[in-house]
Amino acid sequence: MLNLQSTTPDRWLRQVDENLEEILIDHAHCENKAARAALNLLIAYVENASLCRAMSEIVCEELEHFHLVLDLLTERGIRFRRIRQSNYGAQLSALIRPQEPERAVDRLLVAGLIEARSCERFDLLRRHLDDPLLVEFYGSLFESEAAHHATYVRCARDFASDSDVEKRLHELALQEARIIEVGDTLPRMHS
Amino acid sequence: MLNLQSTTPDRWLRQVDENLEEILIDHAHCENKAARAALNLLIAYVENASLCRAMSEIVCEELEHFHLVLDLLTERGIRFRRIRQSNYGAQLSALIRPQEPERAVDRLLVAGLIEARSCERFDLLRRHLDDPLLVEFYGSLFESEAAHHATYVRCARDFASDSDVEKRLHELALQEARIIEVGDTLPRMHS
Repeated sequence: MLNLQSTTPDRWLRQVDENLEEILIDHAHCENKAARAALNLLIAYVENASLCRAMSEIVCEELEHFHLVLDLLTERGIRFRRIRQSNYGAQLSALIRPQEPERAVDRLLVAGLIEARSCERFDLLRRHLDDPLLVEFYGSLFESEAAHHATYVRCARDFASDSDVEKRLHELALQEARIIEVGDTLPRMHS
Repeated sequence: MLNLQSTTPDRWLRQVDENLEEILIDHAHCENKAARAALNLLIAYVENASLCRAMSEIVCEELEHFHLVLDLLTERGIRFRRIRQSNYGAQLSALIRPQEPERAVDRLLVAGLIEARSCERFDLLRRHLDDPLLVEFYGSLFESEAAHHATYVRCARDFASDSDVEKRLHELALQEARIIEVGDTLPRMHS
């Protein structure tokens, strides 16, 4: 369903256990970046009405999640602050082909893969964490991220044939798996 | 209430009468740009929780308006397309002071003045146009833009004293009035 080409290594759950606070802060930033990415896609392809509709929904859902994470931080007395980003997003963005319509396909599929990885990790978190509030929280976000993944893949089909989208999604997912395999020493949602 | 330092000249309503289609297309783009401006402010001042909450609401409301305008264009058989922007936004942005926290104050007040001018013009449109659907439409958007104006001014008070915000709002509103006085030959929502 998620088109990922790897499962998260155990190493990541050790990062979570040792740095939960930082992971939660990063999660808030991720929701924010996801809203921005969707709005940028809307602006870039503003003449595509169905894409605009889909991106608007994602923007508002991501902002809603952002506030849910902020509330969760406040309840735990964790100060929300700027932190250094992992290299995950930048490495994926570097794979985007420069020419249209390939650029549109890649931007949408990269956004879709980030949603897919988030979704896989929210599922891991809800099964791994002991805190019942966090378990419920990550359970509640799981489905929404899966739906966003499907939306991005569907939108990409406006810019290429189904088979080209499938092929490119597989290629990008292999690259994404490689980036995840290398990981990041910073404890982050996508490290 | 709107803190504007001028009323729209009659010249603008002549542009509207002669170019309603283009004005409507520009209106859709304006809603979009307003969503982007609010999201950029959220990202720039992400550690300010009340600002983030306020900006998120504005982003989603502007996107909702964007889709309302798109629907209105579709109903009228008008193809939504990219058009050249008026100079209004760029001229206002040029007034933003570069150093924080003045930059935050100015970005918020400029966004607030754009909302105020939109609000004033929506009111003009609802009183000027004959088409009952457009009259109802601009009536429905009027209040929301006025509320956004008030929100931006309120957020600016997080970055400066009330009297400094009031003084700067007056200065910027005088500049905005000067830009509107000169106008733009392109028929646009803010020409």
